[in-house]
Amino acid sequence: MMQNFRLIPDEAFGIKAIVRIRDIDAIVHNFRLFKAKADQTNTICAAVLKGDVYGLQIKDVAPALYEEGARYFFIEELGEGVELRGILPYDDIHIYALGGLLHDEERYFKEYRLKPCLNSLEQIKRWNAYCKDHGRGSAIIHLDTHMNRLGLLDDEVQILSENYKELTSDINIEFFISHFYDIKGSDPSNCYRQLEVLDGYRAKLPDVPVSFACTDSVILLDNKVFNFDMIRPGIGLVGGAPNAASPISPDARHTMEVYAKISQVKTVKKGQTIGYGGAYSTKKDTRLALVHIGYKHGYLRLLSEIDTNPKGVYMFIAGYKIPVIGKISSGATTVDVTDVPEKILEQYHYAEVIGPNVDIKILADISGCYDILGALGGINSRIADYTLEDFNTRFHNTGF
Amino acid sequence: MMQNFRLIPDEAFGIKAIVRIRDIDAIVHNFRLFKAKADQTNTICAAVLKGDVYGLQIKDVAPALYEEGARYFFIEELGEGVELRGILPYDDIHIYALGGLLHDEERYFKEYRLKPCLNSLEQIKRWNAYCKDHGRGSAIIHLDTHMNRLGLLDDEVQILSENYKELTSDINIEFFISHFYDIKGSDPSNCYRQLEVLDGYRAKLPDVPVSFACTDSVILLDNKVFNFDMIRPGIGLVGGAPNAASPISPDARHTMEVYAKISQVKTVKKGQTIGYGGAYSTKKDTRLALVHIGYKHGYLRLLSEIDTNPKGVYMFIAGYKIPVIGKISSGATTVDVTDVPEKILEQYHYAEVIGPNVDIKILADISGCYDILGALGGINSRIADYTLEDFNTRFHNTGF
Repeated sequence: MMQNFRLIPDEAFGIKAIVRIRDIDAIVHNFRLFKAKADQTNTICAAVLKGDVYGLQIKDVAPALYEEGARYFFIEELGEGVELRGILPYDDIHIYALGGLLHDEERYFKEYRLKPCLNSLEQIKRWNAYCKDHGRGSAIIHLDTHMNRLGLLDDEVQILSENYKELTSDINIEFFISHFYDIKGSDPSNCYRQLEVLDGYRAKLPDVPVSFACTDSVILLDNKVFNFDMIRPGIGLVGGAPNAASPISPDARHTMEVYAKISQVKTVKKGQTIGYGGAYSTKKDTRLALVHIGYKHGYLRLLSEIDTNPKGVYMFIAGYKIPVIGKISSGATTVDVTDVPEKILEQYHYAEVIGPNVDIKILADISGCYDILGALGGINSRIADYTLEDFNTRFHNTGF
Repeated sequence: MMQNFRLIPDEAFGIKAIVRIRDIDAIVHNFRLFKAKADQTNTICAAVLKGDVYGLQIKDVAPALYEEGARYFFIEELGEGVELRGILPYDDIHIYALGGLLHDEERYFKEYRLKPCLNSLEQIKRWNAYCKDHGRGSAIIHLDTHMNRLGLLDDEVQILSENYKELTSDINIEFFISHFYDIKGSDPSNCYRQLEVLDGYRAKLPDVPVSFACTDSVILLDNKVFNFDMIRPGIGLVGGAPNAASPISPDARHTMEVYAKISQVKTVKKGQTIGYGGAYSTKKDTRLALVHIGYKHGYLRLLSEIDTNPKGVYMFIAGYKIPVIGKISSGATTVDVTDVPEKILEQYHYAEVIGPNVDIKILADISGCYDILGALGGINSRIADYTLEDFNTRFHNTGF
């Protein structure tokens, strides 16, 4: 078991209590897995890089994917697009903003050569008017197939269909996109209902290329039916999946590891409460360790183990799974190390919080979504951050 | 009602979808409220600045509190201490690290003149040995009064008491500190039990100044009994409190405001599901707005409104409370704007997410802790960030 626990030298921590390692090659590897699925249906494979690539950081990921041949990129908002345009200033890439064209953003979209995913008639009119005055533009139109979130619903699609030429007189509509809202369960019937809604929309509109499938739908649904003209993997690029039982493929790789220092080890008797609110009681005499990571670092409070709502979250140390117990504090989490030999605790002064032994997909299943990946992956001056390549170069690491 | 909705000009957003305003003067004001409570018992009023001052940012807060006379500061970890030492390089300030002396940190504590809150015998021995070789040092000893988290428990206190002189031969122990674990409810009996434990510990140990009370305990407990020699307000400095019904005082001020752009407004019929998982159904024909903020910006996913677990979170626009409905996405949150006149929605293109109309204390009550303040307050290149002073100077704002 020990061979999978990464050795982190003291100097890698330096003045920080937490080390984070981002494996950019693994993201490229995962992109290839999606591209293979896209190639089977002669479909473009885009890459969704929103939220700083779910914490994996656009500055490192974007150039690596460009190198791999990716040319179609989705971000969520203007600010992300401006950053990506700075990283990839090339003429042959397409940057689409999923969040749409917010108020007063037209001139920035033009200046940075970004393409909005127009989510409403109001946005279509505003972008078209701007492009009429400032030169022809491009865009995607986001059709809301009854997710009832972003995009044009039936009423706006009807108006669009009746006035398409006028409404889009000065913009090239490159794609229609839509989004699945109920993909995680074992019953895909709502996905097929959304497909019917899309078919109804398309029957009224001009023939424009379509993009529907994101990570989860590319993995779970019939690619021949759902891939259309472009797939948009996002969380799948960084090792995510609909749930822990549905990986991208057996070959998908983890992309992020997080390690945090242990501050102290102590013993409490059976029946004692642990931490805030006395919300967890020890079920046995318990050896516990304080790991220096908490919700202020992005280790979400909702992963806490309390008696009335047990979650079963754990960390890992040198061959041993160590369960989280009690409420997670701002900068400390208590784990049960009763089963870990003392010599292991004396030898290693840190725990694996996310990594090869603590699958991010399982944490996402427990918390309900991948918010923890973005939270732990954020730019944070309190965390010693490395790409795996940097880490291996600096610390002469030879793997696990 | 309208007078409390802050006017945010388009140029304040710039290329960002979110504006954050941090009121540093309000923090100083709140510090004065705690200092008045400390002064009544001739007690030092320290300031806890961990987690980048819960998102209010140490670079702005620390100099303002120093100016106000604060000299005792607590941070959580070495990295925060190094930053604070750079901001306040003066000889007359004390910087204590609540997280303790983690493995291999001795030389950094010495170099940056930081004082660890020693949480275990192991840390006491390690710091004492280092100071024996490199010059006398200072520290706090953290006594665990049965919170069963950080600090020395009965067994280690016993050993410390029997070997105090030897164990602390080369360090000045400035304070004993401890921490309440069950303060938020209406029953303070566990606090008094912790006080008894502390009294038992002190009876065995030399007479050293004591610090027990933090924000919640300073507000809720009898100051004459609990203030001891130093109080340590933290979340209270930034407007937090045990719960929304227990403010620091009626004069306490809010310190952070967050505004996010609205991307689109649309209507869905009664009985339709909203967003991911179809987890919320409309109870009436509903006019909804998409606000461009989500969990990737720190607007925690757990604040989502789903039918099986309604939370009642809301935002605000120009006199109107607008409830969150459905699951919060990475970069978008759906709100119900049915009751908001169309002319208001045409005039204002943003919503108040936190501010004078959306009390952070209520969000903390709902989510269970103040994690949202730190999450939304983090350094984030996607957010247009201002101190209130900067904002007013740059945009000639005349208040609400």
